[in-house]
Amino acid sequence: MSTATVAEVPNTLLLSTRETAEAAKLASRGLAALAEAARNAALEAMAQALDAAQTELLAANAEDMRAAASRRGAEKLPPATLARLELNPAKLAEMAAQVRSVAALPDPLGRTLDAIELDDKDGSESVSSEVRAGRGLSMQKVSVPLGVLAVIFEARPDAVTQIAALALKSGNAIILKPGREVEHTATALVRVLREALTKQHVPPDAVSLVLGRERVQQLLAMHSLVDLVIPRGGKALVEHVQANTRIPVLGHAEGVCHIYVDREADAELALRVIDDAKTDYPAACNAVETVLVHREVAAEFLPRLAERLLAQGVALHGDAAVRSLLRDVPVAEVDDWHTEYGELAISLGVVASLDAAIEHIHTHGSAHTESILTEDPAAAERFLHEVDAASVLLNASPRFADGFRYGFGAEVGISTSKFHARGPVGLEGLTTYKYVVRGHGHIAGDYRGADARSFTHKREAR
Amino acid sequence: MSTATVAEVPNTLLLSTRETAEAAKLASRGLAALAEAARNAALEAMAQALDAAQTELLAANAEDMRAAASRRGAEKLPPATLARLELNPAKLAEMAAQVRSVAALPDPLGRTLDAIELDDKDGSESVSSEVRAGRGLSMQKVSVPLGVLAVIFEARPDAVTQIAALALKSGNAIILKPGREVEHTATALVRVLREALTKQHVPPDAVSLVLGRERVQQLLAMHSLVDLVIPRGGKALVEHVQANTRIPVLGHAEGVCHIYVDREADAELALRVIDDAKTDYPAACNAVETVLVHREVAAEFLPRLAERLLAQGVALHGDAAVRSLLRDVPVAEVDDWHTEYGELAISLGVVASLDAAIEHIHTHGSAHTESILTEDPAAAERFLHEVDAASVLLNASPRFADGFRYGFGAEVGISTSKFHARGPVGLEGLTTYKYVVRGHGHIAGDYRGADARSFTHKREAR
Repeated sequence: MSTATVAEVPNTLLLSTRETAEAAKLASRGLAALAEAARNAALEAMAQALDAAQTELLAANAEDMRAAASRRGAEKLPPATLARLELNPAKLAEMAAQVRSVAALPDPLGRTLDAIELDDKDGSESVSSEVRAGRGLSMQKVSVPLGVLAVIFEARPDAVTQIAALALKSGNAIILKPGREVEHTATALVRVLREALTKQHVPPDAVSLVLGRERVQQLLAMHSLVDLVIPRGGKALVEHVQANTRIPVLGHAEGVCHIYVDREADAELALRVIDDAKTDYPAACNAVETVLVHREVAAEFLPRLAERLLAQGVALHGDAAVRSLLRDVPVAEVDDWHTEYGELAISLGVVASLDAAIEHIHTHGSAHTESILTEDPAAAERFLHEVDAASVLLNASPRFADGFRYGFGAEVGISTSKFHARGPVGLEGLTTYKYVVRGHGHIAGDYRGADARSFTHKREAR
Repeated sequence: MSTATVAEVPNTLLLSTRETAEAAKLASRGLAALAEAARNAALEAMAQALDAAQTELLAANAEDMRAAASRRGAEKLPPATLARLELNPAKLAEMAAQVRSVAALPDPLGRTLDAIELDDKDGSESVSSEVRAGRGLSMQKVSVPLGVLAVIFEARPDAVTQIAALALKSGNAIILKPGREVEHTATALVRVLREALTKQHVPPDAVSLVLGRERVQQLLAMHSLVDLVIPRGGKALVEHVQANTRIPVLGHAEGVCHIYVDREADAELALRVIDDAKTDYPAACNAVETVLVHREVAAEFLPRLAERLLAQGVALHGDAAVRSLLRDVPVAEVDDWHTEYGELAISLGVVASLDAAIEHIHTHGSAHTESILTEDPAAAERFLHEVDAASVLLNASPRFADGFRYGFGAEVGISTSKFHARGPVGLEGLTTYKYVVRGHGHIAGDYRGADARSFTHKREAR
């Protein structure tokens, strides 16, 4: 058998979780110092290595597929999971292409986010000292990497290459913890990527791997070494991670998204948008779960909406008002307005006003993505302004709330946190910043007291 | 006695912590909807109310001062704390002036942080549909408030008005939990501020108060209602808060700041900068704690530095190399390179190279503020680029790492977190953003498949 085994990944699986994290932190210092060209060259080397190692990667994946096939009863993987787990030459080629497309994105590092001249004179003791050009005090706010990312994911081989590429592009080291069902494939992929990095003289500990369920808790406890945790998987995984770490978590546990059909909505437009929002990809976090209809248009609009959705195979749930308006069609009772169906099912409700709709959304929503459909500019602006969510949309499907569609080039995830990164997160979400101050002997004491010098505080063109 | 008592603050002290937080969340929705002029008018009303209530506020403060005077033994407050606790007419006038200066700052809300045209055509079904001007799909990233801030502080009456002003300016509600020694003053201040808000038709629950040690734990557990915790106090308070909540914390537990004196440093400049960095305000978090000197200049530079610092009353601690070079002066051994003295004491060390200095800083620093003194541009750029800290400085005192000096107008605190806000934090740190998408019936399904429409993804001038 020629498949990659655990022992073939050098220097990662023999280390403790702490040693792995310490090595990753050290590697992250090296990455932070790499110029853009060096990071892009390493990405190209990674893509080439993926192309070259097809046989070996497919063999490792076959081992995971055999293990999956031998599962019985409750242990059996659902067909959708099996489909995601299985690699083939076309999928591998796509993974390599994804790595190259990340390389082609603009550099997220070293961007000047702000620049302020603090003083235009040099730092010598006398206020009246001769002004010497270029000897002032300046401050720049510059984007820098976060450091070490821990990625905990389920049965998705493509998560390995995608997140490794995004991390390398943004100068961050990653520690991958794959689900058990993808361990052979992930191990082989990490081996290939580390070899490619080594050939490019990039520290291979920029990409490392830990296996075993107990490693998750260990990683989540390392807040002095791990800067960000990215859970990639179902709601249970994300909630577990959020509840068990002090490290910032990038992600969202749920997307209970609403569409409010205003009194002044264009009915045709509303039917098309709601259809798309529910049926385009029902499992997506930005698919709609609840439609709220203004009571003045409910009697007219709801039967048309029910007809359209039922034709698409969508199961309807409604409140009392909806059920009394839709007596001729099957409408179940809404159990819980917090339900994220993730499938062809929807909750329908009638509201008395725009305010009632906003109130409902704040009470039951997950602050992910909320839409209003209306031709009334005042109602539109109130909704867009007052609804507290990562994305708010007017007369458009919530499915647009996505990093690629927003034009970020790549998506790290969608965040429902209000901190650091909110909504669809691109490469920028894997960076922070530092303030860089350049002076010529400037001291704080000179800017205080009787003969105090003054700051110029002139914002410079970026 | 005319002092404000606990019972005189309506509707806040009778509520449970959860009820207070729920009322604050509701008030925060109202604040988010207020235009800049309304927020500024409320700030002016707050300042006027502070001026008008001098007698009452001084009486409440006198009660806290009497309680402080009756403390005995270990309970006694240090003179510096007493000085901060005591109000007088001049201090009150300064507090009102601070509120007005916050009102004068640029609006942190509603700023367009990014704007991308996603499509220039309208959302009707056919790709070939006529282009109608102004009916495209656009995305804007707009700054919005965080929501509810919990502020836990010690014996500082001015913290109440300052943080209340910053919060109101940025559209956030606050819940204040003062230290026991300032309870009477804080209660009277909050009463005055709430009255001023009510007169301006701003929800008074925008500023509320909870008293009692048990309320701290209750606040820290409310991650669904409280968006940010700001601890204002000593290291013990900050560490306690950080270790006991899942809510994001704005602040820093320590500032162990370094200055590296390079081989190519200008000795005169270095003496002035280090003197300022240590003696300008030794208790500040951005005061220097450790000076690292390149070994090739140590024998020449250290005796001059020792002389200058000893003349200023600074106690010296040194490693073996320093002590052997400074045999004629009193130098204690360095116990611990992590020490934040916060007083006129300093650690001195000799390093073999720039790399050794960076390594020392990463091992022992708190990623707060780090300086290099050198005339060698290559060494300077390596240090500024590679040192991982919120602020890095060249030939300037670390004391400049401060929101006012950086030109932010106001400082909420200094963050050593890499998330959301890093380094000195101004009003921007009390905001997040949301994505606002405006369309005309655009649906995601149209941008996929054989006849897919394409995104234009044109970044617009901000």
